[in-house]
Amino acid sequence: MENAIDKLIDKIKEKDNPTVIGLDPRYEIIPDCIKNKYSQDLEGAGKAIIEFNKALIDAVYDIIPAIKPQIAFYEMFGIYGMKAFEETCKYAKEKGMIVIADMKRGDIGTTAKAYSNASIGKTKIGEINHSIYDVEFVTVNPYLGTDGVIPFIEDCKEYGKGIFVLVKTSNKSSGELQDLVTEDGEKIYIKVAKLVNEWGKELIGKYGYSSISSVVGATYPKQLEELRKIMPHSYFLIPGYGAQGGKAEDIALGFDDKGLRWNCKCVKKFNLCI
Amino acid sequence: MENAIDKLIDKIKEKDNPTVIGLDPRYEIIPDCIKNKYSQDLEGAGKAIIEFNKALIDAVYDIIPAIKPQIAFYEMFGIYGMKAFEETCKYAKEKGMIVIADMKRGDIGTTAKAYSNASIGKTKIGEINHSIYDVEFVTVNPYLGTDGVIPFIEDCKEYGKGIFVLVKTSNKSSGELQDLVTEDGEKIYIKVAKLVNEWGKELIGKYGYSSISSVVGATYPKQLEELRKIMPHSYFLIPGYGAQGGKAEDIALGFDDKGLRWNCKCVKKFNLCI
Repeated sequence: MENAIDKLIDKIKEKDNPTVIGLDPRYEIIPDCIKNKYSQDLEGAGKAIIEFNKALIDAVYDIIPAIKPQIAFYEMFGIYGMKAFEETCKYAKEKGMIVIADMKRGDIGTTAKAYSNASIGKTKIGEINHSIYDVEFVTVNPYLGTDGVIPFIEDCKEYGKGIFVLVKTSNKSSGELQDLVTEDGEKIYIKVAKLVNEWGKELIGKYGYSSISSVVGATYPKQLEELRKIMPHSYFLIPGYGAQGGKAEDIALGFDDKGLRWNCKCVKKFNLCI
Repeated sequence: MENAIDKLIDKIKEKDNPTVIGLDPRYEIIPDCIKNKYSQDLEGAGKAIIEFNKALIDAVYDIIPAIKPQIAFYEMFGIYGMKAFEETCKYAKEKGMIVIADMKRGDIGTTAKAYSNASIGKTKIGEINHSIYDVEFVTVNPYLGTDGVIPFIEDCKEYGKGIFVLVKTSNKSSGELQDLVTEDGEKIYIKVAKLVNEWGKELIGKYGYSSISSVVGATYPKQLEELRKIMPHSYFLIPGYGAQGGKAEDIALGFDDKGLRWNCKCVKKFNLCI
């Protein structure tokens, strides 16, 4: 079974580009030449999103290694949106891209298993295992602790998949809980980082990174640097670059010395920024 | 605009029953007399789930005030499962039940807005606002802090809806993060409880409860008692009763003295157990 993070890094090396394109469709900014082909309702919106996403994927698949669709922007269009999500994942895979489903799921064990089935695992009906989204990676929320993450880890092992666990998120109020200092002097995001290290131990691939890795916001460069040091085996998915204010010199701190040397002119290191 | 928590409490009073039925379909335990009507694939599974859920709703709607479908168990069947989720919510509402969508969503502001659109808000296409699940309540994960919750609160105000925020979950490892003690001596779940109190201030209804309320596990009776005291305006959704080991005397601690008197023989108080 190929290790998911190895597969992602190989793809980044092949394209010589550590960027993942976020596909979070805003219906209102899809060009009219696409929207006007379809009805102005949920079904038409779903179809317009599929066409728009396919055009984007066509434009970038030869230079960008991965997409990260955020499922909320599909779910808001009901089943037509979910169909667009499925189609988008499928099309990107056909074009050889890695898909990171941004779902931030987190629940108790049995429910986490169901979420994992939908994203990186399989759904058994009778004797047949069905793939649903069948993406390579899914993002996971750690607030419920280890038993809400184990079902995902088991599917990572069984199907060669990976997860990115929220450690320090890019939004303004992320510190309200994540930056609280515990009685032993460590912040919550450090506690989560340590859990992620533990969860990822058995899935470290040929490049020294684990398929159980982390989300760390580009908007918090200090924490990015700190976490880079205490999570040597964690691959970082770094949202917040660009629209949210993260700069190239900020995200540089999340990269490390495995593989090619990072510099701001030539983004060649093996972590992903969005 | 009617306050969502008032609507729920009125329904609980009407049925004289503070129980919510969790609809987390397991395909393998749906009776063969239903399953055999449909194909043994994702589409057939979705249809079997709809029929099964409708039969359950038919059986209980006159004595139970609310359903709580857990979306993961639908999502694992792809778009057919999501259709079953939508149909289940719609049917329960037609039968006069309150629907609490157990989705545990949590993300940065713009994404939280999209999740809120899908569950309790609306999705705008052109000049028309479309309802998607259109449930009364949705569960929310607080790990990203206030700006991930505000979009839900805004929709609660605009559309008379409510949310239940995860404070202390019922699973075994919930304490790994939620029970960590901060440097000022307060546990993380207490910090979250205080945030929920703050978030809920403007949406307190006629019974003294807020439409911005909490999830507190039946499996942690001590914490239930503690949180009941520091969250006087929070309505408690108390999962973990039954299958997960929570007993009637445990959940009693989560009830309070507003309204009818609680006793274990006659469940007449205004909080919900699952």
